[in-house]
Amino acid sequence: MLEYDGAAYGGSQRQANAPSVQGALEEAIGRLTGESVRAAFAGRTDAGVHALGQVAAFDTGAGHAPQVWRRALNALLPKDIAVRAAAEVEERFDPRRQARRREYQYTIWNAPVRSPLLARLAWHVASPLDTGRMNEASRLLEGEHDFAAFGGPPGEGRSTRRRVFRAEVLGGGRRVAFEIEGDAFLPHQVRRTVGALVEIGRGKLEPGAFARWLAEPEPGVAGPAAPPHGLCLMRVVYEGHGPDFGEDD
Amino acid sequence: MLEYDGAAYGGSQRQANAPSVQGALEEAIGRLTGESVRAAFAGRTDAGVHALGQVAAFDTGAGHAPQVWRRALNALLPKDIAVRAAAEVEERFDPRRQARRREYQYTIWNAPVRSPLLARLAWHVASPLDTGRMNEASRLLEGEHDFAAFGGPPGEGRSTRRRVFRAEVLGGGRRVAFEIEGDAFLPHQVRRTVGALVEIGRGKLEPGAFARWLAEPEPGVAGPAAPPHGLCLMRVVYEGHGPDFGEDD
Repeated sequence: MLEYDGAAYGGSQRQANAPSVQGALEEAIGRLTGESVRAAFAGRTDAGVHALGQVAAFDTGAGHAPQVWRRALNALLPKDIAVRAAAEVEERFDPRRQARRREYQYTIWNAPVRSPLLARLAWHVASPLDTGRMNEASRLLEGEHDFAAFGGPPGEGRSTRRRVFRAEVLGGGRRVAFEIEGDAFLPHQVRRTVGALVEIGRGKLEPGAFARWLAEPEPGVAGPAAPPHGLCLMRVVYEGHGPDFGEDD
Repeated sequence: MLEYDGAAYGGSQRQANAPSVQGALEEAIGRLTGESVRAAFAGRTDAGVHALGQVAAFDTGAGHAPQVWRRALNALLPKDIAVRAAAEVEERFDPRRQARRREYQYTIWNAPVRSPLLARLAWHVASPLDTGRMNEASRLLEGEHDFAAFGGPPGEGRSTRRRVFRAEVLGGGRRVAFEIEGDAFLPHQVRRTVGALVEIGRGKLEPGAFARWLAEPEPGVAGPAAPPHGLCLMRVVYEGHGPDFGEDD
């Protein structure tokens, strides 16, 4: 399980022209074992998006205990990435396909003045937000729906139906959090949902727009996407044969 | 009232060889007004120390309303400094001498693994801390005492007696906070107190050491100083003729 500050990365997944979390992890594993491994990630996070509970898995011939992996990788990884916990899993374990639930949190700093101390982790929105209206709209997302209006296309021929277990706007003060738990998300879905929620909070859009967009999905109409630095992948949940990280974290 | 991330600064006060918060503020004021001003600060924060509620004051011939000062300075200041609130004060107002109380918070991340997302604002202490013991020791600091053991010399011929209104260790989880409110503090006093508290939390020192150091102060015996990035000046409190920032912040 990985925590990272995404500011310096082009995203979680390896890519040609930017450093990635995957690349940094694979390099650390390579320095430790001499192996050239390929790490699979549970959730693809965009450039600048953070994680507290990303899950990555890889095959290795090195038989270290989980504690040794954790300690050694933390010594080798850059300061903005840490292994919070490590566990041995079945060889066929696929952290992406087997994930049953992903939890994201988006943080907004809602005050007239930007906050230098929160600037890296929260989106500064200066206009006053009606969080009651935002929460009302959020709740409409709960359940199984076609989320095509809220996210990018998931890839050729794949469904845009997803299940949201919980979607909630918390905090009525200057620090506002949007929390969403779902089985999976379309590309940019959470950030575009937040962008639309802020329009609702500012009174530019009615909460009922969410009901309309779910009933008659017009691809990608929700937005604009909120900036990446407010978003954090909090947790990935497995059932049955998922990693057992124990209590040590 | 200023908020800043102190990471990039050699401290709050202007100095020869490093950027300072004072220098950045004076430069922004100069760009706005054309005047060359000298800003006085309520609390001197060391290199790397943050603030949520620093107070600075300056003389100016520019008759802007407080809201205009705030908006204009925030547009001119670097991203890691913000004016949270502005107010007009009497010409003789001295933010340092007239301050009656200063509140600091020190944050510790107490977990086996460092936290990339908190790394800029919390000191990572990997060994388990007994926060009950730490709080017991903290409480001994409350009251008026000679704090010579806890801080650097305050300057030729000046007293090392200070009054602490409250000193408390909060949180028994991975995020541990030390909060201290006092009339004033000796140089490095809060960071050296935290350094000693961590020794107590790790079982290397007895809480009673604080009672001993207060009763028979041996200059500078407490420590080592905790690193600056966990420390934040939260608030400065005035009585009577202090700035009235209103509710707008």
